Amino acid sequence: MAKSSGVKTLGYAARDTSGFMSPFIFSRRETGDDDVRVKILYCGICHTDLHRSKNQWGDAKYPMVPGHEITGVVAEVGSKVQKFKTGDRVGVGCLVGSCLSCVECDSHRENYCAKRILTYNNTYYDGTNTYGGNSDHIVVKEHFVVRIPDSLPLDAAAPLLCAGITVYSPIKFFGLDKPGLHLGVVGLGGHGHLCVKFAKAFGSKVTVISSSPDKKKDAIDRFGADAFIHSEDANQMQAAMNTTDGIIDVGAKAHSLQPYIAMLKTHGKLIALGSPNMPNSLPNVNSLVGGRKTVAGSTIGGLKETQEVIDFAAKHNITADIELIPMDYVNTAIERMEKVDIRYRFVIDVGKTLSLMNLPIGDVYIVPPNTKGSPTTKKDSCCCQYL
Amino acid sequence: MAKSSGVKTLGYAARDTSGFMSPFIFSRRETGDDDVRVKILYCGICHTDLHRSKNQWGDAKYPMVPGHEITGVVAEVGSKVQKFKTGDRVGVGCLVGSCLSCVECDSHRENYCAKRILTYNNTYYDGTNTYGGNSDHIVVKEHFVVRIPDSLPLDAAAPLLCAGITVYSPIKFFGLDKPGLHLGVVGLGGHGHLCVKFAKAFGSKVTVISSSPDKKKDAIDRFGADAFIHSEDANQMQAAMNTTDGIIDVGAKAHSLQPYIAMLKTHGKLIALGSPNMPNSLPNVNSLVGGRKTVAGSTIGGLKETQEVIDFAAKHNITADIELIPMDYVNTAIERMEKVDIRYRFVIDVGKTLSLMNLPIGDVYIVPPNTKGSPTTKKDSCCCQYL
Repeated sequence: MAKSSGVKTLGYAARDTSGFMSPFIFSRRETGDDDVRVKILYCGICHTDLHRSKNQWGDAKYPMVPGHEITGVVAEVGSKVQKFKTGDRVGVGCLVGSCLSCVECDSHRENYCAKRILTYNNTYYDGTNTYGGNSDHIVVKEHFVVRIPDSLPLDAAAPLLCAGITVYSPIKFFGLDKPGLHLGVVGLGGHGHLCVKFAKAFGSKVTVISSSPDKKKDAIDRFGADAFIHSEDANQMQAAMNTTDGIIDVGAKAHSLQPYIAMLKTHGKLIALGSPNMPNSLPNVNSLVGGRKTVAGSTIGGLKETQEVIDFAAKHNITADIELIPMDYVNTAIERMEKVDIRYRFVIDVGKTLSLMNLPIGDVYIVPPNTKGSPTTKKDSCCCQYL
Repeated sequence: MAKSSGVKTLGYAARDTSGFMSPFIFSRRETGDDDVRVKILYCGICHTDLHRSKNQWGDAKYPMVPGHEITGVVAEVGSKVQKFKTGDRVGVGCLVGSCLSCVECDSHRENYCAKRILTYNNTYYDGTNTYGGNSDHIVVKEHFVVRIPDSLPLDAAAPLLCAGITVYSPIKFFGLDKPGLHLGVVGLGGHGHLCVKFAKAFGSKVTVISSSPDKKKDAIDRFGADAFIHSEDANQMQAAMNTTDGIIDVGAKAHSLQPYIAMLKTHGKLIALGSPNMPNSLPNVNSLVGGRKTVAGSTIGGLKETQEVIDFAAKHNITADIELIPMDYVNTAIERMEKVDIRYRFVIDVGKTLSLMNLPIGDVYIVPPNTKGSPTTKKDSCCCQYL
């Protein structure tokens, strides 16, 4: 039987490119001086989880415990932790590390640090793999933990940690937060519906552009968008030319940016947050020239800004529209995400549904802590080995 | 014999898609209250002249008198003109009109006004075609005329009116004018060589990226660039990844932007000023995401900024490297431009080489002033009809 000097952790891991997730026991490090140990209560499912768990981006490290939209309560703090105490409501997003000394880190842009460490499927300072929020607890340096105000429900707030900051950061950075602007939002999914809510809170006129015309009602009645355009309706697209100050593009289907560039006014900005499938393209860069238009990318946000988006969301009563699911529904949830059958974010009720008592008998892996490189795994026939 | 109520003007015009230019007599309007009549001394040849005169952009209005890099002296001013007097050294660039009342015009961005009127091949307020600087004089509203300081030679300053402002404006607007930045300049032609000079004057480290390795010596020894990269040398391109804060792309050959995006640091900006031939493309927009990179377009500049670039050039002793040619060399010059056989800008010595005495006997067109739409032209067998 394998022994661990760390803290036993129960999670759900993908083991191979099928992406199928099943119970997984591993060790997390002891709570260090500047660490916070978070009892995980909720974890959102991001499209990234789907792509990474099936190795669609070619960088999978198995076993993989996905999840980077984590909320919970502080279970333990290290001796030097100053911001948090046991019982605090907190969140952990996409990052658990960065160098904290480069120009990016010094500018509160840890998300652009060349040495940033992602919450899962990445290599930690000590050489071990990082494991995400589909697990019962996580140990994170204080710097990478944010506070969740009491007014925000921990389940519906979880997606703010990735989807929320990802759409909020570029709206702010590219100056699209000025009241009275007209913003387009391409794609009404997990990111898109939060983007509409933030843009409305900033005082924008908002037009949703979607390939799913049946989302019109939600866009307008549920999220408060001012207009809806079916992206496959050439007349609607034509009529919208030169009307928007900015567009946040979170469309899931690969597409050309050309029709959206045409939709920008002079000096307009299209912010691409990444296509999860085939890459989007801009076939004719000349289309930017006559109107001094911009196409830019952006990814998540720094820790200071992540706290800012959480506080902004609390102030404006913004949370994700979620479907709360039990841990063992995760594979079905991923299947439904592939079929775009989710409105608008799955959140796993980790606290109530992930426990050893609920586990099926089956293969369980044990990963010793502080293992360099890919973890050495050990297979056993029953999860009860630790009991 | 045709009569004209305007002021007889002698120019060189293209008559058809061959682009071949030959003598052309037409009328310009009388000098109005807010007009300045400029005796043209020099006119630069822009790549635009080549493309427009051969209708490569599909919008040619023949007969066409190209030329929008115009310098000369004021020959006459209207009664309400305040900024200029007879004898002043002045320039006229790409614009001779705009609405002067929209948000763009109010913000000194007449170049982005939806009703901007280009110096040639465009329709003026009165419905007549605009004719450019390959002519002995031009009548322009005072607002669209800039002053050329005494220290700038009028011939080598002419290209500042288009090429100069076109590269200067985005450097300023996109914040790439801060000392100590590392700028890339793609393409070392008329625009590119001025871009290097401006970037050096702003205190940048400058790397020229060109498909012509034989331009390395000029880039470094003549224009002061710090480094040179041959764009077709994969090793050099690879070594330059993540090194530049900004890139000004004025490469003449159509290309993918992908390798230049890779050359940008995090938060870097690539400014595309338009490919004159096939459009440049950005096949994978996702490449912008991880480093919050920007691709933007820009075109010329407003009048206030055009005066600014002229004054900046005077202060920093920046002019174009030119080959001064006589008017009747214009067709040969265009041929040489097509073969990229020019270092670095042709400027026509209009003042000394365009006169009726120099004209060959041949077809000459007369265009009555104030003609609506396409000009009604009348053919005669000799240019002496006006004498």
